[in-house]
Amino acid sequence: MRKRKVGVLGATGSVGQRFVQLLEGHPWFELGALFASERSAGKRYKDAAQWFLPSKLPQEAAEMVVQPMDAIGAPANEELAIMFSALPGDVASKVERRCAELGFAVSSNVAVHRMEPDVPLIIPEINADHLALIEMQKSNRGWDGFIVTNPNCSTIVMALSLKPLLPLGIHTVHVATMQAVSGAGYTGLGSMAILDNVIPYIGKEEGKMERETLKILGRLDGASVRNAPFTVCASCHRVPVMDGHTMAIWVNFKDAVSADAVKDAFLNFSSEFKTPFAPEKPVIVREEPNRPQPRLDRDAGNGMSVSVGRIRSGNVGNEIKYIAQGHNTVRGASGASILNAEVLVERGYIP
Amino acid sequence: MRKRKVGVLGATGSVGQRFVQLLEGHPWFELGALFASERSAGKRYKDAAQWFLPSKLPQEAAEMVVQPMDAIGAPANEELAIMFSALPGDVASKVERRCAELGFAVSSNVAVHRMEPDVPLIIPEINADHLALIEMQKSNRGWDGFIVTNPNCSTIVMALSLKPLLPLGIHTVHVATMQAVSGAGYTGLGSMAILDNVIPYIGKEEGKMERETLKILGRLDGASVRNAPFTVCASCHRVPVMDGHTMAIWVNFKDAVSADAVKDAFLNFSSEFKTPFAPEKPVIVREEPNRPQPRLDRDAGNGMSVSVGRIRSGNVGNEIKYIAQGHNTVRGASGASILNAEVLVERGYIP
Amino acid sequence: MRKRKVGVLGATGSVGQRFVQLLEGHPWFELGALFASERSAGKRYKDAAQWFLPSKLPQEAAEMVVQPMDAIGAPANEELAIMFSALPGDVASKVERRCAELGFAVSSNVAVHRMEPDVPLIIPEINADHLALIEMQKSNRGWDGFIVTNPNCSTIVMALSLKPLLPLGIHTVHVATMQAVSGAGYTGLGSMAILDNVIPYIGKEEGKMERETLKILGRLDGASVRNAPFTVCASCHRVPVMDGHTMAIWVNFKDAVSADAVKDAFLNFSSEFKTPFAPEKPVIVREEPNRPQPRLDRDAGNGMSVSVGRIRSGNVGNEIKYIAQGHNTVRGASGASILNAEVLVERGYIP
Amino acid sequence: MRKRKVGVLGATGSVGQRFVQLLEGHPWFELGALFASERSAGKRYKDAAQWFLPSKLPQEAAEMVVQPMDAIGAPANEELAIMFSALPGDVASKVERRCAELGFAVSSNVAVHRMEPDVPLIIPEINADHLALIEMQKSNRGWDGFIVTNPNCSTIVMALSLKPLLPLGIHTVHVATMQAVSGAGYTGLGSMAILDNVIPYIGKEEGKMERETLKILGRLDGASVRNAPFTVCASCHRVPVMDGHTMAIWVNFKDAVSADAVKDAFLNFSSEFKTPFAPEKPVIVREEPNRPQPRLDRDAGNGMSVSVGRIRSGNVGNEIKYIAQGHNTVRGASGASILNAEVLVERGYIP
Repeated sequence: MRKRKVGVLGATGSVGQRFVQLLEGHPWFELGALFASERSAGKRYKDAAQWFLPSKLPQEAAEMVVQPMDAIGAPANEELAIMFSALPGDVASKVERRCAELGFAVSSNVAVHRMEPDVPLIIPEINADHLALIEMQKSNRGWDGFIVTNPNCSTIVMALSLKPLLPLGIHTVHVATMQAVSGAGYTGLGSMAILDNVIPYIGKEEGKMERETLKILGRLDGASVRNAPFTVCASCHRVPVMDGHTMAIWVNFKDAVSADAVKDAFLNFSSEFKTPFAPEKPVIVREEPNRPQPRLDRDAGNGMSVSVGRIRSGNVGNEIKYIAQGHNTVRGASGASILNAEVLVERGYIP
Repeated sequence: MRKRKVGVLGATGSVGQRFVQLLEGHPWFELGALFASERSAGKRYKDAAQWFLPSKLPQEAAEMVVQPMDAIGAPANEELAIMFSALPGDVASKVERRCAELGFAVSSNVAVHRMEPDVPLIIPEINADHLALIEMQKSNRGWDGFIVTNPNCSTIVMALSLKPLLPLGIHTVHVATMQAVSGAGYTGLGSMAILDNVIPYIGKEEGKMERETLKILGRLDGASVRNAPFTVCASCHRVPVMDGHTMAIWVNFKDAVSADAVKDAFLNFSSEFKTPFAPEKPVIVREEPNRPQPRLDRDAGNGMSVSVGRIRSGNVGNEIKYIAQGHNTVRGASGASILNAEVLVERGYIP
Repeated sequence: MRKRKVGVLGATGSVGQRFVQLLEGHPWFELGALFASERSAGKRYKDAAQWFLPSKLPQEAAEMVVQPMDAIGAPANEELAIMFSALPGDVASKVERRCAELGFAVSSNVAVHRMEPDVPLIIPEINADHLALIEMQKSNRGWDGFIVTNPNCSTIVMALSLKPLLPLGIHTVHVATMQAVSGAGYTGLGSMAILDNVIPYIGKEEGKMERETLKILGRLDGASVRNAPFTVCASCHRVPVMDGHTMAIWVNFKDAVSADAVKDAFLNFSSEFKTPFAPEKPVIVREEPNRPQPRLDRDAGNGMSVSVGRIRSGNVGNEIKYIAQGHNTVRGASGASILNAEVLVERGYIP
Repeated sequence: MRKRKVGVLGATGSVGQRFVQLLEGHPWFELGALFASERSAGKRYKDAAQWFLPSKLPQEAAEMVVQPMDAIGAPANEELAIMFSALPGDVASKVERRCAELGFAVSSNVAVHRMEPDVPLIIPEINADHLALIEMQKSNRGWDGFIVTNPNCSTIVMALSLKPLLPLGIHTVHVATMQAVSGAGYTGLGSMAILDNVIPYIGKEEGKMERETLKILGRLDGASVRNAPFTVCASCHRVPVMDGHTMAIWVNFKDAVSADAVKDAFLNFSSEFKTPFAPEKPVIVREEPNRPQPRLDRDAGNGMSVSVGRIRSGNVGNEIKYIAQGHNTVRGASGASILNAEVLVERGYIP
């Protein structure tokens, strides 16, 4: 397969750097352009980005000159097949729409368009069929290109664990998250705020988990998605962990369900996707009494698998409780967008 | 008031050291004896205990010679009015029962006797009337002394926050804890286990929260306690925080209740106790969107107040969700036992 | 003694908040005014400052309206006897000089004026006699007021430990620091930068330790200070600790000196000062093989004592090596400025 | 090349687990036997070892039955070509000597035999020629096998950085370490001891750095090693970092040397070894002002490279100061023993 050139919007930030890292050596994609704010534009990427990932800054990216947003339409960028977006919320909407207008396929990690009815909010192992919204979107908006989004980091982890349980009849879901600091971005959270501490608040996070989950797990019904018919109630918290969101989940089922049945559902869940970033097992069951743990499990499946464990009966209603954990900047952000792009290629949405 | 001499059982461990620290300069109590395992017996306390608290090892305790358990009945110990127990579970039952037999009032932080029907499980601001079980206990067992217990650390924090809500009609409670490492004891948790990590499991903790809460909030009915008529469903987790347990709590009420009504219930909750360790406000309401936090709030009320915040409506049933936080080794352990002892003195159970 | 009203310049930052905290209930000083940048000016302090200290925001400060820098000369501020400065470097020089011109005594924690020949750089237990430079300064500059400074946080800790050793004949000093994150300010250091990490670089810190130490330990010689006649060579590093700078120090003496002689020098070192913030023991010797430690020792002497330990012979020249530790934002910053101000009052420099 | 079967002594501990991890898929070696204490013997490795590494417990090791020490001589173990030793100090000497007697080549990470005159203490990039001591050792002791050792973790990191500087004429070395918790073993250091803390003491560590360094960098002189002709003075400290020892090093040269000359020496240093664990660059120079950092640099060269940075002139004598960092359980322990074994094979010491 020929390599498609791709661009990264918002390339210098925390999620942007993950895009650059994960795209290195990608068998289908090749980094073609890096875009960032005026402050970074014109500098070599190695000078513009304060590289904070343990792996080496990829050589090809290091020397690339960062472009400003208004250079997106420049002729040299026409060869880009996909734009990955890690833009800050305030500029994301305008830039992503402009990209779509110009004919680019945008695979976005940004929240701003996720809940729009004609924008697919995709986790391939769950709802790749929602990609059918792309045609609606293009037609509605008169765009040559389109925008596809992936959910919020904690939503992705939880939703992947809920998907196998759908056939068992979910009634309500409670979730308490213990989220890593990398989710706040490189400068988002001061060390004095989180050392020896828990911050029991993450702006807008609970609403995202409560709403996005229902769209992802919903059913495509003609021109829109009908929300999944249950309720999610989230409480979100930051803990002093570098990477990996851990969450305690209670699922109350419509009818009595055993912990073994839930475990079997996890074990039997598999993925049809064989693209480079698709993990062999989207959901891994840990048998140990004290797993999953972020330090030990975040890199499972190259950071693309969600690990679950401690599957046990609750004592309210038909409740089962369990722990889920996933890498928030790989499966939960840049890796998610890349997997979406792979599926777009495979399904022919990207020429 | 004359000072009563007190002993500490299991004085060298994590909770034992907190007893020694908190008893220093106590206006009613004076340290009279320290008991520990054979390994420590015969040594000066300063040599037997690896003091790990930031404050200075109190001088009087430092020079005291640690006694073995079988010296409890020695004539010199007869003057002890109270035995505080921080014993490891495996020896606690035998030693505490022996103390009660010998006529001592035992104020215990240990789990082993908490759920026995004639053993009071006390948080004074909640159920000081349960102390009436003492007479039953003495009569049942033919003891001159007696055992009074306080709940598990995380149970105390949650139960104090639930007490003001009882009149609103609690139906079910969900709780996810983020617990400090000091709860595992000084050697209980290796640094490699918890640095940059969450451990989503604490042995027996969930069962304690689910059962003890109902006894504490239950109603004394003749010779026993009738459990509070609701259900608790807990998920317990360890995070890299030194002191202070934080927890996300969802309370589903029998009827619709507003977040303001819950907040008012917290604000109007007060304590009748004016003893040295009784906090002026057992429950403090934080208005900031990101509080309470363990580093900032664990020492509120000298570590004896529970802080609550983020009181908001859930979206399942009549649910209100909030965050509670309290100091696990002060309010949640040694401070709780000391407060219980103060109330025992005030109410005349200790001569 | 009547209470003097004092102002805090740069009141909302990390060091500014410590000033506000430490001045609460001060027996000699009373908070009279808070100054900060335009962004904060006009707001109540509780709204302008994101209070991050575990203790409660003092009530009097909470409601005080923050003033902009250009209000310093306003008539209502004339009653201020002292200005404590925690200003950011770029504005400090101009504002502090303006204050001195207006007749205020400025007790500054800022680096900018420390090394000017007529500006006293003071640690009272070391060189209170250098306050004689104040007259020179006023006369040189035609000011009614004056500026007195305290050294950099790590310099203070080391210098206090070196003072007792001066009579033994210091030849060279090597120091490697392990500094707390609070030294970088509340937003100075992102959590992703320091969790599970060491940052072996702190901008300008090594130069400060190498130069300031020699001025403080120098000898007043007429109108200026003659540097202490030895050399300091520093390597400075940040570690994931909230408060308390720890440092490994090697002192090479001109002649052979025993570890016992060094220990005795520490033990015999005492302070003539009895003002509120003067610690009874400026230097505390820890005998345990693994002390001092920041978590256990930073609050010694209410955070104003430096703790030393592990005094042992080196194997190069006449070297003795030891560990020193002190609270970087108390002894090393705001507490240092307050102690300086107390001494200024006691010695009659402030009416 | 045919794969040689190898055994791991002390396979369940921190260093033992690293051996098992690093040997997985090794092109020259194949895990043949795991030995541990009586407590573990007879269990499958997956049940005996509490696997704490982020990567998956290798399948072949998981199912292997752990053998007791006294099974070493069993016929089934005769096919083992190498014994890697991660034994606790108290049993290491007897067991390792017994192995050598039985004819095994022992590649040991344990301290006990390192300083014996006829035991090679090897870092291949530095002193592979010292392997000539093996013949002496076999002849002295009448063994068919032999013992080869690698230095202490912090010694390895420092020594690799000193080797390129030898030609410049080293006079004295000062080093202050900031060591990771994994160096203390899985249960060696409680979380309460190190969270938000520095422990300025590591038992015996300073002596090891001061002595082992001189043997490694020494010159083989007939039947023994003549120590390198300079002095090392170490101060060792533990910090809350998972993996990676960072150290501040001052090298005082006999004659004036520029920082550039030191940097060039690092840049020009290369390794003759091309075995699987030999890093392409044993010493990597970081140009950034704030590197190396353990989180970002510990995995350089698959954890086998030492990173140096901040090379600058000191202000005492002919001093140059710099920072060095290396992975303490890879380059500093198990990886070091494996590299030694590879070189033993390559040089024909192992048939």
